[in-house]
Amino acid sequence: MAERGRGWARAVRGLLLDVSGVLYDSGAGGGVAIAGSVEAVRRIKASGLKLQLCTNETQATRESFVRKLRALGFDISVAQVTAPAPAACHLLRERGLRPHLLVHHDLLPEFAEIDKTNPNCVVLGDAAENFTYANLNEAFRLLIGMEKPVLISLGKGRYYKETDGLKLDVGAYMKALEYACDIQAEVVGKPAKRFFESALAELGVPPEQAIMIGDDIVNDVGGAQRCGMRALQVRTGKYRPSDENHPEVKPDAYVNNLAEAVDIILQEL
Amino acid sequence: MAERGRGWARAVRGLLLDVSGVLYDSGAGGGVAIAGSVEAVRRIKASGLKLQLCTNETQATRESFVRKLRALGFDISVAQVTAPAPAACHLLRERGLRPHLLVHHDLLPEFAEIDKTNPNCVVLGDAAENFTYANLNEAFRLLIGMEKPVLISLGKGRYYKETDGLKLDVGAYMKALEYACDIQAEVVGKPAKRFFESALAELGVPPEQAIMIGDDIVNDVGGAQRCGMRALQVRTGKYRPSDENHPEVKPDAYVNNLAEAVDIILQEL
Repeated sequence: MAERGRGWARAVRGLLLDVSGVLYDSGAGGGVAIAGSVEAVRRIKASGLKLQLCTNETQATRESFVRKLRALGFDISVAQVTAPAPAACHLLRERGLRPHLLVHHDLLPEFAEIDKTNPNCVVLGDAAENFTYANLNEAFRLLIGMEKPVLISLGKGRYYKETDGLKLDVGAYMKALEYACDIQAEVVGKPAKRFFESALAELGVPPEQAIMIGDDIVNDVGGAQRCGMRALQVRTGKYRPSDENHPEVKPDAYVNNLAEAVDIILQEL
Repeated sequence: MAERGRGWARAVRGLLLDVSGVLYDSGAGGGVAIAGSVEAVRRIKASGLKLQLCTNETQATRESFVRKLRALGFDISVAQVTAPAPAACHLLRERGLRPHLLVHHDLLPEFAEIDKTNPNCVVLGDAAENFTYANLNEAFRLLIGMEKPVLISLGKGRYYKETDGLKLDVGAYMKALEYACDIQAEVVGKPAKRFFESALAELGVPPEQAIMIGDDIVNDVGGAQRCGMRALQVRTGKYRPSDENHPEVKPDAYVNNLAEAVDIILQEL
Protein backbone atom coordinates (compact mmCIF):
# COMPACT_ATOMS: atom_id res chain seq x y z
CA MET A 1 0.00 0.00 0.00
CA ALA A 2 1.36 3.44 -0.87
CA GLU A 3 1.77 6.09 1.77
CA ARG A 4 -1.25 8.37 1.71
CA GLY A 5 0.57 11.63 2.46
CA ARG A 6 1.37 12.37 -1.16
CA GLY A 7 3.53 15.45 -1.12
CA TRP A 8 5.90 13.48 -3.29
CA ALA A 9 3.34 13.36 -6.12
CA ARG A 10 2.96 17.14 -6.48
CA ALA A 11 4.50 19.47 -9.09
CA VAL A 12 5.47 16.62 -11.37
CA ARG A 13 6.09 17.29 -15.06
CA GLY A 14 7.93 14.17 -16.13
CA LEU A 15 8.50 10.51 -15.23
CA LEU A 16 11.60 8.39 -15.65
CA LEU A 17 10.68 4.71 -15.69
CA ASP A 18 12.92 1.74 -15.21
CA VAL A 19 11.79 -0.98 -17.60
CA SER A 20 12.60 -4.55 -16.52
CA GLY A 21 10.61 -5.26 -13.36
CA VAL A 22 8.43 -2.16 -13.84
CA LEU A 23 6.94 -2.45 -17.33
CA TYR A 24 7.61 -6.14 -17.82
CA ASP A 25 9.43 -9.18 -16.50
CA SER A 26 12.08 -10.18 -19.01
CA GLY A 27 12.67 -13.78 -20.03
CA ALA A 28 12.50 -16.30 -22.82
CA GLY A 29 10.19 -15.32 -25.69
CA GLY A 30 10.37 -11.61 -24.88
CA GLY A 31 8.99 -11.73 -21.33
CA VAL A 32 5.57 -10.68 -20.09
CA ALA A 33 4.04 -7.30 -19.33
CA ILE A 34 3.38 -6.63 -15.64
CA ALA A 35 -0.34 -6.36 -14.99
CA GLY A 36 -1.63 -2.81 -15.53
CA SER A 37 1.63 -1.42 -16.93
CA VAL A 38 0.58 -1.11 -20.60
CA GLU A 39 -2.48 0.86 -19.58
CA ALA A 40 -0.40 2.92 -17.10
CA VAL A 41 1.99 4.04 -19.86
CA ARG A 42 -1.00 4.97 -22.03
CA ARG A 43 -2.45 7.07 -19.19
CA ILE A 44 0.90 8.84 -18.59
CA LYS A 45 1.04 9.85 -22.26
CA ALA A 46 -2.62 10.94 -22.31
CA SER A 47 -2.06 13.09 -19.22
CA GLY A 48 0.54 15.29 -20.91
CA LEU A 49 3.31 14.21 -18.51
CA LYS A 50 6.66 13.71 -20.20
CA LEU A 51 7.96 10.17 -20.23
CA GLN A 52 11.44 8.68 -20.65
CA LEU A 53 12.58 5.11 -20.06
CA CYS A 54 15.84 4.96 -18.12
CA THR A 55 17.18 1.44 -18.35
CA ASN A 56 20.39 -0.47 -17.73
CA GLU A 57 19.26 -2.95 -20.38
CA THR A 58 22.30 -4.13 -22.32
CA GLN A 59 21.02 -7.34 -23.88
CA ALA A 60 19.77 -5.63 -27.04
CA THR A 61 20.05 -2.49 -29.14
CA ARG A 62 17.53 0.21 -28.34
CA GLU A 63 15.81 -0.55 -31.64
CA SER A 64 15.17 -4.20 -30.86
CA PHE A 65 14.40 -3.39 -27.22
CA VAL A 66 11.68 -0.97 -28.36
CA ARG A 67 10.34 -3.55 -30.85
CA LYS A 68 9.99 -5.99 -27.96
CA LEU A 69 8.21 -3.44 -25.76
CA ARG A 70 5.86 -2.48 -28.62
CA ALA A 71 5.06 -6.17 -29.16
CA LEU A 72 4.04 -6.31 -25.49
CA GLY A 73 1.70 -3.36 -26.12
CA PHE A 74 3.78 -0.41 -24.88
CA ASP A 75 3.54 2.71 -27.05
CA ILE A 76 7.22 3.73 -26.86
CA SER A 77 9.72 5.16 -29.39
CA VAL A 78 13.51 4.73 -29.59
CA ALA A 79 14.02 8.40 -28.64
CA GLN A 80 12.27 7.68 -25.35
CA VAL A 81 14.93 5.20 -24.24
CA THR A 82 18.08 6.21 -22.33
CA ALA A 83 20.43 3.19 -22.20
CA PRO A 84 24.08 2.52 -21.26
CA ALA A 85 25.52 1.42 -24.62
CA PRO A 86 25.05 4.75 -26.43
CA ALA A 87 26.39 6.53 -23.33
CA ALA A 88 29.43 4.24 -23.38
CA CYS A 89 30.06 4.94 -27.08
CA HIS A 90 30.06 8.66 -26.30
CA LEU A 91 32.63 8.12 -23.54
CA LEU A 92 34.82 5.84 -25.71
CA ARG A 93 34.97 8.47 -28.47
CA GLU A 94 35.64 11.27 -25.99
CA ARG A 95 38.67 9.45 -24.58
CA GLY A 96 40.00 7.67 -27.67
CA LEU A 97 39.34 4.23 -26.15
CA ARG A 98 39.16 1.09 -28.29
CA PRO A 99 37.09 -1.55 -26.48
CA HIS A 100 37.24 -5.29 -26.21
CA LEU A 101 33.53 -6.08 -25.82
CA LEU A 102 32.23 -8.66 -23.36
CA VAL A 103 28.56 -8.00 -24.03
CA HIS A 104 25.44 -9.72 -25.28
CA HIS A 105 25.54 -10.65 -29.00
CA ASP A 106 22.42 -8.60 -29.62
CA LEU A 107 24.07 -5.45 -28.26
CA LEU A 108 26.99 -5.51 -30.72
CA PRO A 109 25.31 -3.28 -33.37
CA GLU A 110 25.36 -0.37 -30.87
CA PHE A 111 29.18 -0.48 -31.14
CA ALA A 112 29.33 -0.94 -34.93
CA GLU A 113 30.95 2.46 -35.55
CA ILE A 114 33.54 2.15 -32.76
CA ASP A 115 37.17 1.22 -33.51
CA LYS A 116 37.82 -2.08 -31.75
CA THR A 117 41.30 -2.87 -33.08
CA ASN A 118 44.14 -3.35 -30.59
CA PRO A 119 41.91 -2.83 -27.52
CA ASN A 120 42.98 -0.50 -24.72
CA CYS A 121 39.94 -1.09 -22.51
CA VAL A 122 37.27 -3.68 -21.76
CA VAL A 123 33.54 -2.88 -21.93
CA LEU A 124 31.40 -5.22 -19.87
CA GLY A 125 27.64 -5.54 -20.33
CA ASP A 126 25.07 -8.07 -19.25
CA ALA A 127 26.51 -10.70 -21.56
CA ALA A 128 24.23 -13.50 -20.25
CA GLU A 129 25.18 -16.74 -22.08
CA ASN A 130 28.37 -15.00 -23.24
CA PHE A 131 29.57 -15.00 -19.62
CA THR A 132 31.54 -18.17 -20.26
CA TYR A 133 34.68 -19.25 -18.44
CA ALA A 134 36.68 -18.70 -21.65
CA ASN A 135 35.26 -15.22 -22.31
CA LEU A 136 35.83 -14.08 -18.74
CA ASN A 137 39.42 -15.33 -18.84
CA GLU A 138 39.96 -13.52 -22.15
CA ALA A 139 38.67 -10.20 -20.75
CA PHE A 140 40.78 -10.72 -17.63
CA ARG A 141 43.97 -11.39 -19.60
CA LEU A 142 43.49 -8.28 -21.71
CA LEU A 143 42.99 -6.14 -18.61
CA ILE A 144 45.87 -7.58 -16.59
CA GLY A 145 48.14 -7.07 -19.62
CA MET A 146 47.37 -3.32 -19.84
CA GLU A 147 49.69 -0.84 -18.19
CA LYS A 148 46.65 0.96 -16.76
CA PRO A 149 43.67 -1.39 -17.05
CA VAL A 150 40.42 0.40 -17.97
CA LEU A 151 37.21 -1.52 -17.28
CA ILE A 152 33.94 0.16 -18.28
CA SER A 153 30.85 -1.55 -16.90
CA LEU A 154 27.39 -0.98 -18.35
CA GLY A 155 25.65 -0.86 -14.98
CA LYS A 156 26.52 -2.52 -11.71
CA GLY A 157 23.29 -4.34 -10.84
CA ARG A 158 23.58 -7.36 -8.55
CA TYR A 159 20.87 -9.47 -10.14
CA TYR A 160 17.59 -9.26 -12.00
CA LYS A 161 14.51 -11.36 -12.40
CA GLU A 162 13.55 -13.20 -15.55
CA THR A 163 10.46 -15.32 -16.02
CA ASP A 164 12.51 -18.42 -15.13
CA GLY A 165 14.12 -16.94 -12.03
CA LEU A 166 16.81 -14.58 -10.71
CA LYS A 167 20.00 -14.08 -12.75
CA LEU A 168 23.37 -12.62 -11.83
CA ASP A 169 23.67 -9.16 -13.37
CA VAL A 170 26.69 -7.40 -14.85
CA GLY A 171 27.75 -5.99 -11.45
CA ALA A 172 28.68 -9.43 -10.17
CA TYR A 173 31.01 -10.04 -13.12
CA MET A 174 32.35 -6.50 -12.78
CA LYS A 175 33.32 -7.32 -9.17
CA ALA A 176 35.04 -10.53 -10.30
CA LEU A 177 37.23 -8.62 -12.78
CA GLU A 178 37.83 -5.73 -10.37
CA TYR A 179 39.09 -8.16 -7.75
CA ALA A 180 41.21 -10.22 -10.13
CA CYS A 181 42.92 -7.11 -11.56
CA ASP A 182 42.86 -5.00 -8.37
CA ILE A 183 41.13 -2.14 -10.18
CA GLN A 184 37.93 -0.09 -10.01
CA ALA A 185 35.53 -0.20 -12.94
CA GLU A 186 33.94 2.95 -14.34
CA VAL A 187 30.19 2.49 -14.36
CA VAL A 188 28.12 3.80 -17.27
CA GLY A 189 24.39 3.48 -16.57
CA LYS A 190 22.37 3.72 -13.38
CA PRO A 191 23.27 4.68 -10.65
CA ALA A 192 25.91 6.98 -12.23
CA LYS A 193 24.89 10.61 -11.81
CA ARG A 194 25.97 11.50 -15.32
CA PHE A 195 23.64 8.86 -16.73
CA PHE A 196 20.59 10.16 -14.84
CA GLU A 197 21.48 13.67 -15.97
CA SER A 198 21.45 12.51 -19.61
CA ALA A 199 18.04 10.92 -19.06
CA LEU A 200 16.70 14.13 -17.50
CA ALA A 201 18.08 16.17 -20.40
CA GLU A 202 16.27 13.86 -22.82
CA LEU A 203 13.14 14.09 -20.69
CA GLY A 204 13.44 17.90 -20.78
CA VAL A 205 12.47 18.35 -17.12
CA PRO A 206 14.58 19.48 -14.14
CA PRO A 207 15.18 16.92 -11.37
CA GLU A 208 12.84 18.56 -8.87
CA GLN A 209 9.93 18.13 -11.31
CA ALA A 210 10.74 14.51 -12.16
CA ILE A 211 9.97 11.20 -10.47
CA MET A 212 11.97 8.02 -11.04
CA ILE A 213 10.02 4.76 -10.71
CA GLY A 214 12.04 1.56 -10.38
CA ASP A 215 12.30 -1.84 -8.72
CA ASP A 216 15.98 -1.52 -7.71
CA ILE A 217 16.43 0.18 -4.35
CA VAL A 218 20.06 1.16 -4.97
CA ASN A 219 20.43 1.69 -8.71
CA ASP A 220 17.02 3.25 -9.42
CA VAL A 221 15.90 4.84 -6.17
CA GLY A 222 19.22 5.76 -4.57
CA GLY A 223 20.78 6.94 -7.83
CA ALA A 224 17.82 9.16 -8.76
CA GLN A 225 17.56 10.69 -5.29
CA ARG A 226 21.25 11.62 -5.41
CA CYS A 227 20.43 13.66 -8.54
CA GLY A 228 17.70 15.59 -6.74
CA MET A 229 14.76 13.57 -8.05
CA ARG A 230 12.02 11.95 -6.04
CA ALA A 231 11.95 8.19 -6.47
CA LEU A 232 9.43 5.40 -5.91
CA GLN A 233 10.08 1.71 -5.50
CA VAL A 234 7.53 -0.66 -7.03
CA ARG A 235 6.83 -3.99 -5.35
CA THR A 236 7.28 -5.85 -8.65
CA GLY A 237 10.33 -7.24 -10.47
CA LYS A 238 13.32 -7.81 -8.21
CA TYR A 239 11.72 -6.01 -5.23
CA ARG A 240 12.16 -7.96 -1.99
CA PRO A 241 10.51 -7.13 1.35
CA SER A 242 13.94 -6.69 2.95
CA ASP A 243 14.49 -3.69 0.64
CA GLU A 244 12.15 -1.77 2.96
CA ASN A 245 14.82 -1.98 5.68
CA HIS A 246 17.66 -0.81 3.44
CA PRO A 247 20.29 0.86 5.66
CA GLU A 248 20.99 3.75 3.28
CA VAL A 249 18.20 4.28 0.77
CA LYS A 250 14.62 5.24 1.57
CA PRO A 251 12.24 5.79 -1.37
CA ASP A 252 9.86 8.74 -1.31
CA ALA A 253 7.16 6.07 -1.41
CA TYR A 254 6.50 2.40 -2.08
CA VAL A 255 3.81 1.45 -4.57
CA ASN A 256 2.52 -1.99 -5.38
CA ASN A 257 3.14 -1.50 -9.08
CA LEU A 258 3.40 1.10 -11.84
CA ALA A 259 -0.39 1.28 -12.20
CA GLU A 260 -0.78 2.34 -8.58
CA ALA A 261 1.99 4.96 -8.92
CA VAL A 262 0.27 6.44 -11.96
CA ASP A 263 -3.13 6.44 -10.21
CA ILE A 264 -1.73 8.52 -7.36
CA ILE A 265 0.32 10.87 -9.56
CA LEU A 266 -2.58 11.60 -11.91
CA GLN A 267 -4.92 12.29 -8.98
CA GLU A 268 -2.49 14.99 -7.81
CA LEU A 269 -2.13 16.71 -11.21
CA MET B 1 68.88 -12.49 -7.16
CA ALA B 2 68.19 -13.38 -3.52
CA GLU B 3 69.24 -11.05 -0.77
CA ARG B 4 72.58 -12.13 0.58
CA GLY B 5 71.97 -11.36 4.25
CA ARG B 6 70.46 -14.74 5.02
CA GLY B 7 69.27 -14.48 8.57
CA TRP B 8 65.95 -15.74 7.28
CA ALA B 9 67.48 -19.12 6.31
CA ARG B 10 68.72 -19.99 9.82
CA ALA B 11 67.18 -22.37 12.38
CA VAL B 12 64.89 -23.97 9.83
CA ARG B 13 63.45 -27.41 10.50
CA GLY B 14 60.62 -27.61 7.99
CA LEU B 15 59.40 -26.18 4.70
CA LEU B 16 55.87 -25.54 3.51
CA LEU B 17 55.74 -25.38 -0.27
CA ASP B 18 53.03 -23.99 -2.47
CA VAL B 19 52.68 -26.26 -5.49
CA SER B 20 51.30 -24.58 -8.62
CA GLY B 21 53.85 -21.99 -9.76
CA VAL B 22 56.53 -23.38 -7.43
CA LEU B 23 56.84 -27.09 -8.27
CA TYR B 24 55.12 -26.96 -11.64
CA ASP B 25 53.01 -24.84 -13.99
CA SER B 26 49.59 -26.44 -14.27
CA GLY B 27 47.82 -26.83 -17.58
CA ALA B 28 46.51 -29.25 -20.18
CA GLY B 29 48.06 -32.71 -20.03
CA GLY B 30 49.13 -32.33 -16.39
CA GLY B 31 51.35 -29.29 -16.74
CA VAL B 32 55.15 -29.11 -16.66
CA ALA B 33 57.66 -29.19 -13.82
CA ILE B 34 59.49 -25.90 -13.20
CA ALA B 35 63.19 -26.30 -13.99
CA GLY B 36 65.16 -27.56 -10.98
CA SER B 37 62.12 -28.22 -8.78
CA VAL B 38 62.14 -32.04 -8.92
CA GLU B 39 65.77 -32.07 -7.85
CA ALA B 40 65.10 -29.41 -5.21
CA VAL B 41 62.39 -31.57 -3.56
CA ARG B 42 64.77 -34.53 -3.59
CA ARG B 43 67.47 -32.43 -1.88
CA ILE B 44 65.03 -31.20 0.79
CA LYS B 45 64.13 -34.80 1.65
CA ALA B 46 67.77 -35.91 1.65
CA SER B 47 68.69 -33.05 4.00
CA GLY B 48 66.39 -34.26 6.78
CA LEU B 49 64.24 -31.11 6.64
CA LYS B 50 60.53 -31.79 7.02
CA LEU B 51 58.38 -31.07 4.02
CA GLN B 52 54.67 -30.41 3.54
CA LEU B 53 52.85 -29.14 0.46
CA CYS B 54 50.37 -26.40 1.34
CA THR B 55 48.14 -25.86 -1.67
CA ASN B 56 44.87 -24.18 -2.58
CA GLU B 57 44.53 -26.75 -5.37
CA THR B 58 40.86 -27.67 -5.72
CA GLN B 59 40.75 -29.11 -9.21
CA ALA B 60 41.45 -32.66 -8.05
CA THR B 61 41.41 -34.96 -5.05
CA ARG B 62 44.69 -35.18 -3.14
CA GLU B 63 45.11 -38.71 -4.50
CA SER B 64 44.96 -37.69 -8.15
CA PHE B 65 46.92 -34.50 -7.45
CA VAL B 66 49.73 -36.60 -5.95
CA ARG B 67 49.59 -39.01 -8.90
CA LYS B 68 50.09 -36.05 -11.22
CA LEU B 69 53.02 -34.73 -9.19
CA ARG B 70 54.63 -38.18 -9.07
CA ALA B 71 54.25 -38.47 -12.85
CA LEU B 72 56.19 -35.20 -13.12
CA GLY B 73 58.95 -36.76 -10.99
CA PHE B 74 58.14 -35.39 -7.51
CA ASP B 75 58.59 -37.90 -4.67
CA ILE B 76 55.50 -36.88 -2.65
CA SER B 77 52.86 -38.81 -0.68
CA VAL B 78 49.19 -37.97 -0.01
CA ALA B 79 49.95 -37.35 3.68
CA GLN B 80 52.32 -34.57 2.63
CA VAL B 81 49.52 -32.52 1.06
CA THR B 82 47.42 -29.99 3.00
CA ALA B 83 44.52 -28.92 0.77
CA PRO B 84 41.24 -26.98 1.22
CA ALA B 85 38.67 -29.70 0.43
CA PRO B 86 39.45 -31.95 3.43
CA ALA B 87 39.58 -28.83 5.63
CA ALA B 88 36.15 -27.82 4.30
CA CYS B 89 34.71 -31.29 4.99
CA HIS B 90 35.92 -30.96 8.58
CA LEU B 91 34.17 -27.58 8.89
CA LEU B 92 30.94 -28.83 7.25
CA ARG B 93 30.72 -31.74 9.71
CA GLU B 94 31.54 -29.51 12.67
CA ARG B 95 28.66 -27.16 11.83
CA GLY B 96 26.10 -29.57 10.39
CA LEU B 97 26.22 -27.89 6.98
CA ARG B 98 24.96 -29.62 3.82
CA PRO B 99 26.69 -28.11 0.79
CA HIS B 100 25.67 -27.38 -2.74
CA LEU B 101 29.00 -27.86 -4.52
CA LEU B 102 30.22 -25.56 -7.27
CA VAL B 103 33.59 -27.23 -7.70
CA HIS B 104 35.65 -29.04 -10.30
CA HIS B 105 34.28 -32.47 -11.32
CA ASP B 106 37.51 -34.11 -10.26
CA LEU B 107 37.19 -32.75 -6.72
CA LEU B 108 33.79 -34.35 -6.06
CA PRO B 109 35.15 -37.58 -4.49
CA GLU B 110 36.58 -35.53 -1.58
CA PHE B 111 32.95 -34.77 -0.62
CA ALA B 112 31.62 -38.30 -1.17
CA GLU B 113 30.86 -38.86 2.52
CA ILE B 114 29.17 -35.49 3.06
CA ASP B 115 25.37 -35.15 3.18
CA LYS B 116 24.41 -32.90 0.27
CA THR B 117 20.60 -33.18 0.44
CA ASN B 118 18.56 -30.01 0.88
CA PRO B 119 21.63 -27.70 0.89
CA ASN B 120 22.05 -25.01 3.52
CA CYS B 121 25.32 -23.61 2.20
CA VAL B 122 27.32 -23.28 -1.01
CA VAL B 123 30.91 -24.51 -1.31
CA LEU B 124 32.87 -22.82 -4.07
CA GLY B 125 36.12 -24.21 -5.45
CA ASP B 126 38.14 -23.53 -8.56
CA ALA B 127 35.47 -25.06 -10.78
CA ALA B 128 37.22 -24.08 -14.06
CA GLU B 129 34.99 -25.20 -16.97
CA ASN B 130 32.17 -25.69 -14.43
CA PHE B 131 32.10 -21.90 -13.95
CA THR B 132 29.27 -21.64 -16.46
CA TYR B 133 26.60 -18.94 -16.52
CA ALA B 134 23.98 -21.56 -15.57
CA ASN B 135 26.01 -22.98 -12.66
CA LEU B 136 26.79 -19.53 -11.26
CA ASN B 137 23.12 -18.55 -11.45
CA GLU B 138 22.17 -21.79 -9.69
CA ALA B 139 24.61 -21.19 -6.82
CA PHE B 140 23.42 -17.59 -6.58
CA ARG B 141 19.73 -18.57 -6.41
CA LEU B 142 20.39 -21.07 -3.65
CA LEU B 143 22.29 -18.48 -1.62
CA ILE B 144 19.82 -15.64 -2.10
CA GLY B 145 17.03 -18.00 -1.10
CA MET B 146 18.63 -18.84 2.27
CA GLU B 147 17.59 -16.96 5.36
CA LYS B 148 21.27 -16.58 6.30
CA PRO B 149 23.34 -17.37 3.18
CA VAL B 150 26.54 -19.30 3.95
CA LEU B 151 29.20 -19.26 1.23
CA ILE B 152 32.38 -21.27 1.86
CA SER B 153 35.17 -20.55 -0.58
CA LEU B 154 38.10 -22.92 -1.08
CA GLY B 155 40.70 -20.16 -1.32
CA LYS B 156 40.39 -16.60 -2.55
CA GLY B 157 43.14 -16.39 -5.16
CA ARG B 158 42.73 -13.77 -7.87
CA TYR B 159 44.22 -15.75 -10.73
CA TYR B 160 46.79 -18.40 -11.54
CA LYS B 161 48.97 -19.35 -14.43
CA GLU B 162 48.48 -22.40 -16.59
CA THR B 163 50.63 -23.41 -19.51
CA ASP B 164 48.19 -21.64 -21.87
CA GLY B 165 47.98 -18.42 -19.87
CA LEU B 166 46.49 -16.74 -16.80
CA LYS B 167 43.10 -17.92 -15.51
CA LEU B 168 40.63 -16.34 -13.09
CA ASP B 169 40.82 -18.15 -9.77
CA VAL B 170 38.06 -18.98 -7.28
CA GLY B 171 38.43 -15.62 -5.50
CA ALA B 172 37.03 -13.74 -8.48
CA TYR B 173 33.88 -15.89 -8.51
CA MET B 174 33.65 -15.63 -4.74
CA LYS B 175 33.58 -11.83 -5.09
CA ALA B 176 30.83 -12.07 -7.72
CA LEU B 177 28.60 -14.11 -5.38
CA GLU B 178 29.49 -11.99 -2.34
CA TYR B 179 28.43 -8.86 -4.20
CA ALA B 180 25.26 -10.35 -5.68
CA CYS B 181 24.09 -11.63 -2.27
CA ASP B 182 25.60 -8.83 -0.14
CA ILE B 183 27.44 -11.37 2.04
CA GLN B 184 30.98 -12.27 3.08
CA ALA B 185 32.33 -15.70 2.20
CA GLU B 186 34.22 -17.82 4.71
CA VAL B 187 37.56 -18.77 3.21
CA VAL B 188 38.98 -22.26 3.76
CA GLY B 189 42.53 -22.51 2.41
CA LYS B 190 45.35 -20.01 2.19
CA PRO B 191 45.54 -17.27 3.47
CA ALA B 192 43.26 -18.36 6.36
CA LYS B 193 45.26 -18.64 9.58
CA ARG B 194 43.50 -21.85 10.59
CA PHE B 195 44.57 -23.50 7.34
CA PHE B 196 48.26 -22.62 7.80
CA GLU B 197 48.02 -23.88 11.38
CA SER B 198 46.73 -27.25 10.11
CA ALA B 199 49.60 -27.43 7.64
CA LEU B 200 52.12 -26.65 10.41
CA ALA B 201 50.55 -29.32 12.62
CA GLU B 202 50.94 -31.84 9.80
CA LEU B 203 54.51 -30.62 9.22
CA GLY B 204 55.20 -31.07 12.96
CA VAL B 205 57.24 -27.88 13.27
CA PRO B 206 56.42 -24.60 15.06
CA PRO B 207 55.98 -21.49 12.88
CA GLU B 208 59.28 -19.90 13.88
CA GLN B 209 61.16 -22.94 12.55
CA ALA B 210 59.24 -23.13 9.28
CA ILE B 211 59.55 -21.32 5.97
CA MET B 212 56.73 -20.98 3.45
CA ILE B 213 57.76 -20.78 -0.21
CA GLY B 214 55.18 -19.57 -2.69
CA ASP B 215 54.50 -17.52 -5.80
CA ASP B 216 51.49 -15.62 -4.41
CA ILE B 217 52.45 -12.47 -2.53
CA VAL B 218 49.19 -12.24 -0.58
CA ASN B 219 47.93 -15.79 -0.11
CA ASP B 220 51.28 -17.55 0.39
CA VAL B 221 53.65 -14.91 1.72
CA GLY B 222 51.28 -12.61 3.60
CA GLY B 223 49.23 -15.47 5.04
CA ALA B 224 52.26 -17.40 6.30
CA GLN B 225 53.88 -14.33 7.83
CA ARG B 226 50.69 -13.58 9.77
CA CYS B 227 51.10 -17.03 11.35
CA GLY B 228 54.64 -16.24 12.50
CA MET B 229 56.45 -18.04 9.68
CA ARG B 230 59.10 -16.63 7.43
CA ALA B 231 58.07 -16.63 3.77
CA LEU B 232 59.83 -16.41 0.43
CA GLN B 233 58.39 -15.42 -2.92
CA VAL B 234 59.68 -17.27 -5.96
CA ARG B 235 59.92 -15.44 -9.28
CA THR B 236 58.09 -18.27 -11.07
CA GLY B 237 54.40 -19.06 -11.61
CA LYS B 238 52.15 -16.06 -11.22
CA TYR B 239 54.94 -13.84 -9.85
CA ARG B 240 54.92 -10.39 -11.43
CA PRO B 241 57.63 -7.72 -10.98
CA SER B 242 55.03 -5.34 -9.52
CA ASP B 243 54.66 -7.76 -6.58
CA GLU B 244 57.98 -6.37 -5.30
CA ASN B 245 56.22 -3.05 -4.64
CA HIS B 246 53.27 -4.57 -2.81
CA PRO B 247 51.92 -1.95 -0.38
CA GLU B 248 51.36 -4.38 2.50
CA VAL B 249 53.34 -7.59 2.11
CA LYS B 250 57.14 -7.87 2.04
CA PRO B 251 58.62 -11.38 1.76
CA ASP B 252 61.61 -12.29 3.92
CA ALA B 253 63.40 -12.79 0.61
CA TYR B 254 62.84 -13.16 -3.12
CA VAL B 255 64.38 -16.14 -4.89
CA ASN B 256 64.44 -16.84 -8.60
CA ASN B 257 62.93 -20.29 -8.10
CA LEU B 258 62.60 -23.16 -5.65
CA ALA B 259 66.04 -24.52 -6.57
CA GLU B 260 67.69 -21.27 -5.52
CA ALA B 261 65.73 -21.18 -2.25
CA VAL B 262 66.87 -24.72 -1.43
CA ASP B 263 70.50 -23.90 -2.32
CA ILE B 264 70.53 -21.07 0.18
CA ILE B 265 68.64 -22.90 2.93
CA LEU B 266 70.86 -26.00 2.71
CA GLN B 267 74.03 -23.87 2.83
CA GLU B 268 72.81 -22.44 6.15
CA LEU B 269 71.99 -25.81 7.76
